[in-house]
Amino acid sequence: MAKDCTLCQQSGGELLWQNDFCRVVLVDDKQLAGMCRVIAQQHIKEMSDLNPAQQIAMMQVVFAVEKVMREVLRCDKINLASLGNKTPHLHWHIMPRYHDDAHFPESIWATPQRPMKALDSALLQSFTAQLQQHLNQIA
Amino acid sequence: MAKDCTLCQQSGGELLWQNDFCRVVLVDDKQLAGMCRVIAQQHIKEMSDLNPAQQIAMMQVVFAVEKVMREVLRCDKINLASLGNKTPHLHWHIMPRYHDDAHFPESIWATPQRPMKALDSALLQSFTAQLQQHLNQIA
Repeated sequence: MAKDCTLCQQSGGELLWQNDFCRVVLVDDKQLAGMCRVIAQQHIKEMSDLNPAQQIAMMQVVFAVEKVMREVLRCDKINLASLGNKTPHLHWHIMPRYHDDAHFPESIWATPQRPMKALDSALLQSFTAQLQQHLNQIA
Repeated sequence: MAKDCTLCQQSGGELLWQNDFCRVVLVDDKQLAGMCRVIAQQHIKEMSDLNPAQQIAMMQVVFAVEKVMREVLRCDKINLASLGNKTPHLHWHIMPRYHDDAHFPESIWATPQRPMKALDSALLQSFTAQLQQHLNQIA
Protein backbone atom coordinates (compact mmCIF):
# COMPACT_ATOMS: atom_id res chain seq x y z
CA MET A 1 0.00 0.00 0.00
CA ALA A 2 1.37 3.40 -0.98
CA LYS A 3 0.15 6.37 1.07
CA ASP A 4 0.21 8.80 -1.84
CA CYS A 5 -1.47 6.47 -4.38
CA THR A 6 -5.12 7.13 -5.24
CA LEU A 7 -5.71 3.49 -6.19
CA CYS A 8 -4.25 2.23 -2.90
CA GLN A 9 -6.43 4.65 -0.94
CA GLN A 10 -9.66 4.55 -2.98
CA SER A 11 -11.61 1.99 -4.99
CA GLY A 12 -11.26 3.94 -8.27
CA GLY A 13 -14.98 3.64 -9.07
CA GLU A 14 -18.07 1.66 -8.08
CA LEU A 15 -16.81 -1.74 -6.95
CA LEU A 16 -18.43 -4.49 -9.03
CA TRP A 17 -16.27 -7.48 -8.22
CA GLN A 18 -12.97 -8.39 -6.61
CA ASN A 19 -10.69 -11.19 -5.56
CA ASP A 20 -7.33 -11.12 -3.73
CA PHE A 21 -5.51 -10.15 -6.89
CA CYS A 22 -7.61 -7.51 -8.67
CA ARG A 23 -10.89 -5.62 -8.61
CA VAL A 24 -13.33 -4.44 -11.29
CA VAL A 25 -14.92 -1.02 -10.92
CA LEU A 26 -17.39 0.98 -12.96
CA VAL A 27 -16.01 4.46 -13.61
CA ASP A 28 -18.12 7.13 -11.98
CA ASP A 29 -18.16 9.58 -14.90
CA LYS A 30 -21.27 10.25 -17.02
CA GLN A 31 -19.01 11.29 -19.92
CA LEU A 32 -17.64 7.75 -20.00
CA ALA A 33 -20.76 5.72 -19.28
CA GLY A 34 -20.03 2.00 -19.09
CA MET A 35 -16.26 2.40 -18.81
CA CYS A 36 -14.67 -0.06 -16.36
CA ARG A 37 -11.29 -0.45 -14.76
CA VAL A 38 -9.50 -3.61 -13.71
CA ILE A 39 -7.15 -2.61 -10.90
CA ALA A 40 -4.40 -4.64 -9.24
CA GLN A 41 -4.97 -4.88 -5.47
CA GLN A 42 -1.22 -4.63 -4.89
CA HIS A 43 0.74 -1.44 -5.58
CA ILE A 44 2.73 -2.51 -8.63
CA LYS A 45 3.54 -0.46 -11.68
CA GLU A 46 3.71 -2.53 -14.85
CA MET A 47 2.43 -5.82 -16.32
CA SER A 48 6.08 -6.95 -16.40
CA ASP A 49 6.12 -6.74 -12.59
CA LEU A 50 3.76 -9.74 -12.61
CA ASN A 51 4.81 -13.32 -13.29
CA PRO A 52 3.34 -15.00 -16.42
CA ALA A 53 0.51 -16.72 -14.48
CA GLN A 54 -0.47 -13.42 -12.85
CA GLN A 55 -0.35 -11.65 -16.21
CA ILE A 56 -2.77 -14.21 -17.63
CA ALA A 57 -5.03 -13.97 -14.57
CA MET A 58 -5.26 -10.20 -14.93
CA MET A 59 -5.92 -10.28 -18.67
CA GLN A 60 -8.61 -12.95 -18.22
CA VAL A 61 -10.51 -10.45 -16.09
CA VAL A 62 -9.91 -7.64 -18.62
CA PHE A 63 -11.17 -9.83 -21.48
CA ALA A 64 -14.17 -10.97 -19.43
CA VAL A 65 -15.15 -7.32 -19.03
CA GLU A 66 -14.63 -6.75 -22.76
CA LYS A 67 -16.79 -9.76 -23.66
CA VAL A 68 -19.78 -8.77 -21.53
CA MET A 69 -19.40 -5.08 -22.46
CA ARG A 70 -19.50 -5.93 -26.15
CA GLU A 71 -22.45 -8.28 -25.81
CA VAL A 72 -24.62 -6.17 -23.54
CA LEU A 73 -23.72 -2.58 -24.43
CA ARG A 74 -23.47 -3.38 -28.16
CA CYS A 75 -20.75 -0.81 -28.64
CA ASP A 76 -19.06 -0.26 -31.99
CA LYS A 77 -15.54 -0.78 -30.66
CA ILE A 78 -13.74 -1.75 -27.48
CA ASN A 79 -10.73 0.29 -26.35
CA LEU A 80 -8.25 -1.23 -23.90
CA ALA A 81 -5.45 0.70 -22.26
CA SER A 82 -3.01 0.50 -19.38
CA LEU A 83 -1.21 3.84 -19.09
CA GLY A 84 -0.72 4.84 -15.43
CA ASN A 85 1.42 7.90 -16.10
CA LYS A 86 -0.38 9.88 -13.41
CA THR A 87 -1.21 6.92 -11.17
CA PRO A 88 1.54 4.30 -11.53
CA HIS A 89 -0.52 1.56 -9.89
CA LEU A 90 -1.32 -1.15 -12.43
CA HIS A 91 -4.82 -0.71 -13.86
CA TRP A 92 -6.61 -1.33 -17.16
CA HIS A 93 -9.25 0.86 -18.74
CA ILE A 94 -11.93 -1.03 -20.69
CA MET A 95 -13.93 1.47 -22.73
CA PRO A 96 -17.09 0.94 -24.78
CA ARG A 97 -16.84 3.18 -27.84
CA TYR A 98 -19.64 4.31 -30.17
CA HIS A 99 -19.39 6.02 -33.54
CA ASP A 100 -21.35 8.94 -32.09
CA ASP A 101 -19.60 9.22 -28.72
CA ALA A 102 -17.89 12.47 -27.71
CA HIS A 103 -14.39 11.55 -28.94
CA PHE A 104 -14.82 8.92 -31.68
CA PRO A 105 -12.68 7.98 -33.60
CA GLU A 106 -10.05 9.61 -31.39
CA SER A 107 -9.07 8.21 -27.99
CA ILE A 108 -11.07 9.31 -24.94
CA TRP A 109 -8.02 11.39 -23.97
CA ALA A 110 -8.31 13.60 -27.06
CA THR A 111 -10.36 16.81 -27.32
CA PRO A 112 -14.12 16.03 -27.50
CA GLN A 113 -15.66 16.45 -30.95
CA ARG A 114 -19.35 16.38 -29.99
CA PRO A 115 -21.59 16.17 -26.90
CA MET A 116 -21.37 13.08 -24.72
CA LYS A 117 -23.51 10.02 -25.38
CA ALA A 118 -25.64 8.98 -22.40
CA LEU A 119 -26.27 5.29 -21.75
CA ASP A 120 -29.72 4.12 -20.73
CA SER A 121 -29.56 3.43 -16.98
CA ALA A 122 -31.47 0.12 -17.29
CA LEU A 123 -28.95 -1.05 -19.89
CA LEU A 124 -26.07 -0.05 -17.65
CA GLN A 125 -27.64 -1.92 -14.75
CA SER A 126 -28.10 -5.00 -16.91
CA PHE A 127 -24.44 -4.74 -17.95
CA THR A 128 -23.09 -4.60 -14.41
CA ALA A 129 -25.35 -7.48 -13.28
CA GLN A 130 -24.29 -9.73 -16.17
CA LEU A 131 -20.66 -8.76 -15.69
CA GLN A 132 -20.74 -9.71 -12.02
CA GLN A 133 -22.37 -13.03 -12.88
CA HIS A 134 -19.79 -13.77 -15.58
CA LEU A 135 -16.83 -12.86 -13.35
CA ASN A 136 -18.14 -15.11 -10.58
CA GLN A 137 -18.17 -17.98 -13.07
CA ILE A 138 -14.68 -17.54 -14.52
CA ALA A 139 -12.39 -16.21 -11.77
CA MET B 1 -7.54 -9.79 -45.79
CA ALA B 2 -9.58 -6.61 -46.09
CA LYS B 3 -8.91 -4.44 -49.16
CA ASP B 4 -9.58 -1.15 -47.37
CA CYS B 5 -7.56 -2.01 -44.22
CA THR B 6 -4.16 -0.34 -43.81
CA LEU B 7 -2.88 -3.15 -41.59
CA CYS B 8 -3.91 -5.82 -44.11
CA GLN B 9 -2.19 -3.93 -46.93
CA GLN B 10 0.91 -2.60 -45.13
CA SER B 11 3.24 -3.77 -42.38
CA GLY B 12 2.38 -0.84 -40.07
CA GLY B 13 6.05 -0.05 -39.36
CA GLU B 14 9.50 -1.60 -39.66
CA LEU B 15 9.01 -5.35 -39.39
CA LEU B 16 11.07 -6.74 -36.48
CA TRP B 17 9.60 -10.20 -36.03
CA GLN B 18 6.61 -12.28 -37.05
CA ASN B 19 4.98 -15.67 -36.89
CA ASP B 20 1.76 -16.96 -38.48
CA PHE B 21 -0.34 -15.27 -35.84
CA CYS B 22 1.10 -11.80 -35.26
CA ARG B 23 3.93 -9.44 -36.14
CA VAL B 24 5.99 -6.89 -34.20
CA VAL B 25 6.85 -3.61 -35.90
CA LEU B 26 8.79 -0.52 -34.85
CA VAL B 27 6.69 2.58 -35.48
CA ASP B 28 8.30 4.83 -38.07
CA ASP B 29 7.71 8.15 -36.30
CA LYS B 30 10.52 10.16 -34.72
CA GLN B 31 7.99 11.74 -32.34
CA LEU B 32 7.37 8.29 -30.87
CA ALA B 33 10.85 6.81 -30.90
CA GLY B 34 10.91 3.23 -29.66
CA MET B 35 7.16 2.71 -29.91
CA CYS B 36 6.21 -0.75 -31.19
CA ARG B 37 3.03 -2.38 -32.41
CA VAL B 38 1.97 -6.00 -32.12
CA ILE B 39 -0.42 -6.62 -35.00
CA ALA B 40 -2.63 -9.65 -35.68
CA GLN B 41 -1.88 -11.15 -39.09
CA GLN B 42 -5.57 -11.91 -39.58
CA HIS B 43 -8.17 -9.16 -40.06
CA ILE B 44 -10.01 -9.39 -36.75
CA LYS B 45 -11.35 -6.57 -34.65
CA GLU B 46 -11.23 -7.29 -30.94
CA MET B 47 -9.38 -9.45 -28.41
CA SER B 48 -12.71 -11.18 -27.75
CA ASP B 49 -12.64 -12.43 -31.37
CA LEU B 50 -9.73 -14.66 -30.32
CA ASN B 51 -10.06 -17.86 -28.30
CA PRO B 52 -8.40 -17.90 -24.84
CA ALA B 53 -5.21 -19.60 -26.10
CA GLN B 54 -4.86 -17.03 -28.89
CA GLN B 55 -5.46 -14.19 -26.43
CA ILE B 56 -2.63 -15.50 -24.25
CA ALA B 57 -0.35 -15.97 -27.28
CA MET B 58 -0.90 -12.37 -28.37
CA MET B 59 -0.39 -10.91 -24.89
CA GLN B 60 2.81 -12.95 -24.42
CA VAL B 61 4.25 -11.10 -27.40
CA VAL B 62 3.00 -7.74 -26.07
CA PHE B 63 4.54 -8.39 -22.65
CA ALA B 64 7.79 -9.58 -24.25
CA VAL B 65 8.04 -6.22 -26.04
CA GLU B 66 7.26 -4.43 -22.77
CA LYS B 67 9.94 -6.37 -20.89
CA VAL B 68 12.76 -5.66 -23.35
CA MET B 69 11.61 -2.06 -23.86
CA ARG B 70 11.70 -1.43 -20.14
CA GLU B 71 15.10 -3.08 -19.68
CA VAL B 72 16.87 -1.57 -22.67
CA LEU B 73 15.23 1.82 -23.14
CA ARG B 74 15.02 2.43 -19.37
CA CYS B 75 11.82 4.40 -19.78
CA ASP B 76 9.92 5.81 -16.80
CA LYS B 77 6.62 4.12 -17.71
CA ILE B 78 5.19 1.69 -20.23
CA ASN B 79 1.87 2.50 -21.92
CA LEU B 80 -0.15 -0.30 -23.52
CA ALA B 81 -3.22 0.28 -25.65
CA SER B 82 -5.44 -1.48 -28.15
CA LEU B 83 -7.86 1.07 -29.60
CA GLY B 84 -8.41 0.50 -33.33
CA ASN B 85 -11.15 3.09 -33.77
CA LYS B 86 -9.69 4.24 -37.09
CA THR B 87 -8.18 0.90 -38.09
CA PRO B 88 -10.36 -1.90 -36.66
CA HIS B 89 -7.72 -4.57 -37.23
CA LEU B 90 -6.47 -5.92 -33.90
CA HIS B 91 -3.21 -4.27 -32.88
CA TRP B 92 -1.46 -3.24 -29.68
CA HIS B 93 0.62 -0.13 -29.12
CA ILE B 94 3.54 -0.57 -26.71
CA MET B 95 4.91 2.86 -25.84
CA PRO B 96 8.01 3.80 -23.86
CA ARG B 97 7.22 6.92 -21.86
CA TYR B 98 9.63 9.38 -20.23
CA HIS B 99 8.90 12.14 -17.74
CA ASP B 100 10.28 14.63 -20.25
CA ASP B 101 8.64 13.28 -23.41
CA ALA B 102 6.34 15.49 -25.50
CA HIS B 103 3.07 14.40 -23.87
CA PHE B 104 3.92 13.14 -20.36
CA PRO B 105 1.92 12.57 -18.15
CA GLU B 106 -0.89 12.68 -20.71
CA SER B 107 -1.43 9.94 -23.29
CA ILE B 108 0.42 10.21 -26.59
CA TRP B 109 -2.94 11.12 -28.16
CA ALA B 110 -3.24 14.33 -26.14
CA THR B 111 -1.89 17.74 -27.17
CA PRO B 112 1.94 17.86 -26.86
CA GLN B 113 3.22 19.88 -23.90
CA ARG B 114 6.89 20.19 -24.90
CA PRO B 115 9.27 19.30 -27.76
CA MET B 116 9.75 15.63 -28.63
CA LYS B 117 12.44 13.55 -26.96
CA ALA B 118 14.83 11.93 -29.41
CA LEU B 119 16.24 8.48 -28.67
CA ASP B 120 19.89 7.72 -29.34
CA SER B 121 20.04 5.66 -32.53
CA ALA B 122 22.56 3.16 -31.08
CA LEU B 123 20.23 2.57 -28.14
CA LEU B 124 17.28 2.05 -30.48
CA GLN B 125 19.31 -0.41 -32.53
CA SER B 126 20.31 -2.29 -29.38
CA PHE B 127 16.65 -2.40 -28.37
CA THR B 128 15.43 -3.88 -31.66
CA ALA B 129 18.28 -6.45 -31.71
CA GLN B 130 17.58 -7.61 -28.14
CA LEU B 131 13.84 -7.65 -28.82
CA GLN B 132 14.26 -9.89 -31.86
CA GLN B 133 16.50 -12.24 -29.88
CA HIS B 134 14.02 -12.42 -27.00
CA LEU B 135 11.03 -13.02 -29.29
CA ASN B 136 12.87 -15.83 -31.07
CA GLN B 137 13.38 -17.48 -27.69
CA ILE B 138 9.84 -17.26 -26.38
CA ALA B 139 7.43 -17.56 -29.31
